[in-house]
Amino acid sequence: MNGLENDSLKNRKQNKSMGFQVPKGTRDFLPKEAINFFKLIQTVRKVFEEYGFDPIITPAFESFELLAAKGGLGEAVKDEIYYFKDKSDRELGLRFDMTMPLARVVSSNPQMPKPFKRYVIDKVWRYDNPQAMRWREFWQADIDVVGSSSVLADVECLAAVCKILSELGLKDYFIRVNSRKLLDGLMSKSVPENRILEVFRILDKQDKIGIEQVKEELNSIGVDGKAIIKVLTEKDIDISSFEGGQEIKEFFEYAKAYGIDKKLKLDLSLVRGLEYYTGVVFEVFVGAKVSCGGGGRYDNLIEVVGGAKIPATGISLGLDRIFEVMKEKKIFEMKNTVTKVFVANVDEKTKKNAIKIAQKLRNEGISCQTDLMNRNLSKQLQYADSLGIPYSIVVGEKELKEKKFKLKDMKKKTERKMELEEIIKFLQK
Amino acid sequence: MNGLENDSLKNRKQNKSMGFQVPKGTRDFLPKEAINFFKLIQTVRKVFEEYGFDPIITPAFESFELLAAKGGLGEAVKDEIYYFKDKSDRELGLRFDMTMPLARVVSSNPQMPKPFKRYVIDKVWRYDNPQAMRWREFWQADIDVVGSSSVLADVECLAAVCKILSELGLKDYFIRVNSRKLLDGLMSKSVPENRILEVFRILDKQDKIGIEQVKEELNSIGVDGKAIIKVLTEKDIDISSFEGGQEIKEFFEYAKAYGIDKKLKLDLSLVRGLEYYTGVVFEVFVGAKVSCGGGGRYDNLIEVVGGAKIPATGISLGLDRIFEVMKEKKIFEMKNTVTKVFVANVDEKTKKNAIKIAQKLRNEGISCQTDLMNRNLSKQLQYADSLGIPYSIVVGEKELKEKKFKLKDMKKKTERKMELEEIIKFLQK
Repeated sequence: MNGLENDSLKNRKQNKSMGFQVPKGTRDFLPKEAINFFKLIQTVRKVFEEYGFDPIITPAFESFELLAAKGGLGEAVKDEIYYFKDKSDRELGLRFDMTMPLARVVSSNPQMPKPFKRYVIDKVWRYDNPQAMRWREFWQADIDVVGSSSVLADVECLAAVCKILSELGLKDYFIRVNSRKLLDGLMSKSVPENRILEVFRILDKQDKIGIEQVKEELNSIGVDGKAIIKVLTEKDIDISSFEGGQEIKEFFEYAKAYGIDKKLKLDLSLVRGLEYYTGVVFEVFVGAKVSCGGGGRYDNLIEVVGGAKIPATGISLGLDRIFEVMKEKKIFEMKNTVTKVFVANVDEKTKKNAIKIAQKLRNEGISCQTDLMNRNLSKQLQYADSLGIPYSIVVGEKELKEKKFKLKDMKKKTERKMELEEIIKFLQK
Repeated sequence: MNGLENDSLKNRKQNKSMGFQVPKGTRDFLPKEAINFFKLIQTVRKVFEEYGFDPIITPAFESFELLAAKGGLGEAVKDEIYYFKDKSDRELGLRFDMTMPLARVVSSNPQMPKPFKRYVIDKVWRYDNPQAMRWREFWQADIDVVGSSSVLADVECLAAVCKILSELGLKDYFIRVNSRKLLDGLMSKSVPENRILEVFRILDKQDKIGIEQVKEELNSIGVDGKAIIKVLTEKDIDISSFEGGQEIKEFFEYAKAYGIDKKLKLDLSLVRGLEYYTGVVFEVFVGAKVSCGGGGRYDNLIEVVGGAKIPATGISLGLDRIFEVMKEKKIFEMKNTVTKVFVANVDEKTKKNAIKIAQKLRNEGISCQTDLMNRNLSKQLQYADSLGIPYSIVVGEKELKEKKFKLKDMKKKTERKMELEEIIKFLQK
């Protein structure tokens, strides 16, 4: 320890209560949560791969210019991201989504066969106001199909998401679906084409300001609020007579082939992100209220970042939110350790034997721990218990001679003498 | 698309060749690499868990004050990290290792049972000069044992690493081991206690400046360079007579119980990081030259960041380097997709049947793709081939009537007619 470190130590000691904390809006996952979070990731990964999506890995930060290209935000994106410069004054930012990095990868690797189906499960960062279910660092699980302009690609993304949510045990999910093209078609009678984006921006505020206020705002910009709302909320509208309607019909037919049509709801009032999307858009809900993901078709983005004009669609799941919902529904067994068995030694003499037995179990894929603290037997078992390790084996000279060991069920407080081979078979189950 | 986006599009078009690139010192992993990189991670995770290490997840960035506490670097650490401020002027930095976040977690969660054995496999960032096998963004796989002062904990970390390298097929690895305490003991005769760190700093330059230059520098600070080098390079030294010697003997006895003693080499000239470490230190080599990881005991760190005085030890593997070595040794099968089978449709009429068959395969855990581009049959198979998908199934009206489908081996160009159940069994193998 050199001088500076000792100073730091002194300062800490003077102000013990202070301690270091995670940066605002971020959080730690201790084992109890991390063990299950990785199980969640594993399920998502498995299903993505079943659908033939392949993983890519991109850097946590990107050039600021790339990030600023999304949705035409430009400099304004600085307010929403972690922006910084490197020591050569290059402008960088932590990625706020997985789509801009994908667009960069696709535009700079034109040789890749199309469709390019990729998945990514990783962290993104946004400088949001932290609140319930909203963090500054959070996990996204994304799939995108690049190169296909067919609604088949949109449906396939949703089919993968449906399977994931079913496998996770979240039965009460549904996906709201809308179409930018259909909305354009529906509105063509009541709104001039050059006002449509403006109308979308107002409609998007519906959850915040309510339907009446939306009507008023629409009227105030000189379009017929009442007529627009009527079109969007009408129950028995024949959409196929509108532009984009045929495509949505095709979309739902394919959804039937994928077996997911019952989980999709056409919702003409879903306008979120319509400025950016060019075709079908979707938002995933678990229960009635929790939005756990969304996406849609974005046929212009790859060209915007310098690539060819390549159509693309995709969906992003918010894993933190899904995780919180799963915890609330008590879907996980919350345990503090992956360890299955603690191999205890009776005394100093049998310590190395316990280690050797543990090594045998590990070679059979069984997670185990031995004493690393030079504790006596009862303290060893106390540790195993405090961590919630489900089984223990006791290794003493008698047991070694007999070649039989007591396998103890730590919860039921029962034990059984068995040969090591039997124990391995039992624990592998 | 709004105005700004169109401007950006225009700029890109004017300067197509420019394109966006990854930030300096970082890289993308396209599927060919990412598929195998995740396999590597999976093996590492499996072995860590076999040894009873549990995962945690911490934020990508930490408060700058925490990062500056390591090794007493203070403000100087800014030169080596990605440093930035958030919009409330909080000083932050991307983590440069996994140890400082662990120290924070341990000091702020004193209730956790000890030993606390945690693993983490994730990215870290350092503002290094990019060069061969050195990146600014790279992956570390860390295990640490917190709470044990016994060399047992040090040995266990090395045992897990040895198992990982064996399972990865990297037979020619070894681990250099040294001990801070032993070195202190050996030097006590030739170096005054308050000069020892200074001597370590000079010894650490050996690879760069050569042994003769080291001797000279030692002489120039008034210690006996020749005597020091002699002690450190003597072959048949009886270490047990020195302080720290008994501990190293115990260390190697435990290594024998774990079955890893043949992979460890005591090397008194290993001085890397000795300012920071307090006990045994280690460095992992694959082949003779490539350093793929290192670590050691750091009994003071948790106190430095405001926790209790808790001993700790751990090791960090550099996954990018291990991955590069594995690629060089051609250990991986480099493939472009996880997809096992392409389910092709003969014509438009059988498209939905192909989708339904694909859904059945997916429910059996078989990764498959169908046509998302409305291509004809030969174009579909061409895509499957270009991606290296190993099998294809052709779905036409004749096949649907017969309930038998041609399973084609895309490489061998052979095919066999089978019922769907047979195909599933074949592909699950």
